[in-house]
Amino acid sequence: MKAEILAVGTELLMGQITNTNAQYISQKLNSIGIDVYYHSVVGDNSGRLKESLLNALNRCDLVIMAGGLGPTQDDLTKETVADVLEKKLVLHEESLERIKLFFDRMKREMTDNNIKQAYLPEGCTVIENNNGTAPGCIVEKDAKIVVMLPGPPKEMKPMLDDTVIPYLEQKSGYKTVSKYLRVFGIGESQLEDRIMDLVDAQKEVTIATYAKEGQVTVRLTTKCKTYEEAIFKIKPVEEEIAGRLGDNLYSTEDEELEYVASKLLIEHGITISLAESCTGGMIASRLTDVPGISKVFNRGIVSYSNEAKMENLSVSPETLEKYGAVSRQTAIEMAEGVRKTAKTDLGISVTGIAGPDGGTDQKPVGLVYVALADKSGCDCRELRLTGNRDRIRNMTTLYVFDMIRRYVLGAVRINKE
Amino acid sequence: MKAEILAVGTELLMGQITNTNAQYISQKLNSIGIDVYYHSVVGDNSGRLKESLLNALNRCDLVIMAGGLGPTQDDLTKETVADVLEKKLVLHEESLERIKLFFDRMKREMTDNNIKQAYLPEGCTVIENNNGTAPGCIVEKDAKIVVMLPGPPKEMKPMLDDTVIPYLEQKSGYKTVSKYLRVFGIGESQLEDRIMDLVDAQKEVTIATYAKEGQVTVRLTTKCKTYEEAIFKIKPVEEEIAGRLGDNLYSTEDEELEYVASKLLIEHGITISLAESCTGGMIASRLTDVPGISKVFNRGIVSYSNEAKMENLSVSPETLEKYGAVSRQTAIEMAEGVRKTAKTDLGISVTGIAGPDGGTDQKPVGLVYVALADKSGCDCRELRLTGNRDRIRNMTTLYVFDMIRRYVLGAVRINKE
Repeated sequence: MKAEILAVGTELLMGQITNTNAQYISQKLNSIGIDVYYHSVVGDNSGRLKESLLNALNRCDLVIMAGGLGPTQDDLTKETVADVLEKKLVLHEESLERIKLFFDRMKREMTDNNIKQAYLPEGCTVIENNNGTAPGCIVEKDAKIVVMLPGPPKEMKPMLDDTVIPYLEQKSGYKTVSKYLRVFGIGESQLEDRIMDLVDAQKEVTIATYAKEGQVTVRLTTKCKTYEEAIFKIKPVEEEIAGRLGDNLYSTEDEELEYVASKLLIEHGITISLAESCTGGMIASRLTDVPGISKVFNRGIVSYSNEAKMENLSVSPETLEKYGAVSRQTAIEMAEGVRKTAKTDLGISVTGIAGPDGGTDQKPVGLVYVALADKSGCDCRELRLTGNRDRIRNMTTLYVFDMIRRYVLGAVRINKE
Repeated sequence: MKAEILAVGTELLMGQITNTNAQYISQKLNSIGIDVYYHSVVGDNSGRLKESLLNALNRCDLVIMAGGLGPTQDDLTKETVADVLEKKLVLHEESLERIKLFFDRMKREMTDNNIKQAYLPEGCTVIENNNGTAPGCIVEKDAKIVVMLPGPPKEMKPMLDDTVIPYLEQKSGYKTVSKYLRVFGIGESQLEDRIMDLVDAQKEVTIATYAKEGQVTVRLTTKCKTYEEAIFKIKPVEEEIAGRLGDNLYSTEDEELEYVASKLLIEHGITISLAESCTGGMIASRLTDVPGISKVFNRGIVSYSNEAKMENLSVSPETLEKYGAVSRQTAIEMAEGVRKTAKTDLGISVTGIAGPDGGTDQKPVGLVYVALADKSGCDCRELRLTGNRDRIRNMTTLYVFDMIRRYVLGAVRINKE
């Protein structure tokens, strides 16, 4: 099945917002084996919208439209689809009730305009909207399918996930299931090298890799009659790849590295404190993104000055004098210092040169030391990072979360032995 | 002039990346008075690319293409444009030299494939690429203009800004100039109310507003023969709006609030320390995004535990016992405590309930105290924020930066009097 995603809204053409809906819908369609051939965006203009829809129907079997379902005169999606597919718009009582209820809950007055939102093409499948007033719908005619969804992502996404994707899957008679293996510590091309033979030999389970700064995701996808059958088919491929990735694999559930590391700390009740210099609070900030972290996170010290390193972390003046703030010795004293003051199981430190200024020949921009102290000692690593200030800070932060993850998993393994 | 932005790349249709280029190019074209009528995306497929280009040329005067200029067989943009416009591809010696130089600088081997990148349609205007190997170009035929740019944003953006936009401006004989007024502390609809009469009366200077979480931007745009003339026209409108926005206006240069506040601290040499609880390092992290902040930022304490509040910030056990960690009294002691230890001009603190758990009837999720201490006392504010954990943390962070900005400006004003 060939698909086109047709977004409607002048705000997209003005550059006021990015068309993130197209990416989201593309991922979902691809994951159930539907090929997306085109994205297009058109403004709130009746003539151009009609022309774009005709064009899409001419070259694709499935057109997913997002936007233009609002209550105003500018919102023309349903009217245009009804016109092109020669369907009447009829009042859908249930949707009208839902819209009324929505306004009641929000304690706002419903306007006559909103009644327009309950008019839908005759014979369509209605898609409930639990996060807004505009219902969506699926219309079929002559082997073509048109899906209409509202533009705001928080309304569109659940409607796509809960109704449209299952509908399309049912039409095909197949269920498409994907597993995501998330990897840190090896690059995309290195990863591809390791699994090249599997990629070349892929048959029923397709293997795709995606990279973003410092992280790679491997997606395994297959199509079966049932979910269980799909998982059964994916399992051996997943296990083979997992074996090759070793401990670079940090999640088989498509989770962020920060989340995985933080959850491990919480689950195992391992308390932690942080001493950050060049990351300037970024590690603490991402750690505290995770609800429930207060059970194990005691404190973070952003020691931007030497005084802070001495006063809050007990780094000795001699160390700072002799080796400098960016040194292995300082990193170790920072980690041990914060661990001791905070009385936590782990103390973690970062000191480095994020740039753009402050680099020297001996200590260039991108030189970073990270250290992890526990009751039995301190593990300190030297990183040589490239890129700008943002990238150096972000890569350091990811590295620390990976260090935490490896530490907890290692500690758990030792405890079990 | 009607424009279409045609992005080329299967990775967009697979949902691997978002089409941020379309938004960026749209903003730039709109800012020089060119109307964008369509966005489209097509994969690395010769037939479909040709069809999409013909379609675009049929309905628009200007087509800006991004992507498909790489060295591989998949990259078909130039070949397709040359075919459609009936132009030959000829070797551009200067571009070949630049590509060779690029590989020398990166200390990488140049492949034969890269020579293909130096072939460009005859008679085109070449656009230099200082951040990659693919040159771009502008081709004109029969009153139609086709612009080809590489896909990676860090290559595309400077090429668009430095060559394409001036080229298009020169063609029109006009210069379009925009000024951006950035506002914190009032919502978009409230702002629109305040300037409604100006919006209704807009003639030569157009006024548009954009909102993002907690912040609003007002764009003023006009078209003139010269830059100076445009600024002269914008000035009275800018001054009128600035007067109505008062101290809610934090930048007339389209800068981020965090950047404005941090720069003010650096410029005036006002030293600062932070004590963060619910923001968990987010304020420190954004402050240290700004290069040069180490001159004034001494330290941050992420006091997630009561022990940290007592040990690092000298909050008294009685205060914590009597009023709780989330209270006006604790916020004040945190701000004064960190200021005293760090010996800085300012001490700033945050304590609150970011959720999703931890709220009570007396202290609901979203209750946050922020305090700013200086040598003469402490200013503490109670915030009642709505939304999820992310929004509460982000809004608190913005609020603190706004507080810093207002403080520095107030202090500067007092010193001057």
